[in-house]
Amino acid sequence: MSDCQFCDIAAGEAPATRLYEDETVVAFLDIAPVAGGHTLVVPKDHYETLIDMPPEAAGELFERVRVVAGAVETAFDIDGFDIVQANGEAAGQEVFHAHVHILPRYENDDVQVRWPAGKLTESKAEEIATAIRAELPE
Amino acid sequence: MSDCQFCDIAAGEAPATRLYEDETVVAFLDIAPVAGGHTLVVPKDHYETLIDMPPEAAGELFERVRVVAGAVETAFDIDGFDIVQANGEAAGQEVFHAHVHILPRYENDDVQVRWPAGKLTESKAEEIATAIRAELPE
Repeated sequence: MSDCQFCDIAAGEAPATRLYEDETVVAFLDIAPVAGGHTLVVPKDHYETLIDMPPEAAGELFERVRVVAGAVETAFDIDGFDIVQANGEAAGQEVFHAHVHILPRYENDDVQVRWPAGKLTESKAEEIATAIRAELPE
Repeated sequence: MSDCQFCDIAAGEAPATRLYEDETVVAFLDIAPVAGGHTLVVPKDHYETLIDMPPEAAGELFERVRVVAGAVETAFDIDGFDIVQANGEAAGQEVFHAHVHILPRYENDDVQVRWPAGKLTESKAEEIATAIRAELPE
């Protein structure tokens, strides 16, 4: 056992209801589900957040999220679903091994995924974009 | 112009503050941002939801989300960020062209990404897993 519960699940050393597994990811049921089919998909390698993952690994992870989400949607009569992936305590991350929630949604359910809408002014937009573009590859 | 605002942005026919673009995706600032750096990443091809995307296209999209999120994190002094991707009106989807939010987060901000925690019983887990596994490739 390690000190990371998702590493332990990935290694098969901690119990989980596994749905899917391949060389790089494992998908299992969330133990505190908001609804039937609430699933977590995690990389087998330990990365604390999305930022710690090489882009290729992030792509592989979400390729599998798409596959598993398709199965959840087909298996249950859900009205929709959210993909949620939290990075950092301020963002609601509780287990510090990157993980993606597939959250089944129903009309008028108790899931809250919302935020107050601001307004992007033209001058602010250019300032923000300049700062972000400077950090991106050409 | 099409009848899809994100197709129009992808085609360069509607205005947006573009941050990044390649053959398959475009990233631009959300016009109703919760905070500076709130970004959308969308596939250039029109897919209504994640389920409509081939898994490979979903992987490519999120590979770029990872890259852009890294730039947002470096450019701003954020405490964390959420990746949110809504599918269906019940899930909060408002524009029906698949899109991924990069949501900058700060301690005690007004973003709500949370849900009531249920309890996964052993018998229920097996029933749910059986239904989902039946829809997954071997």
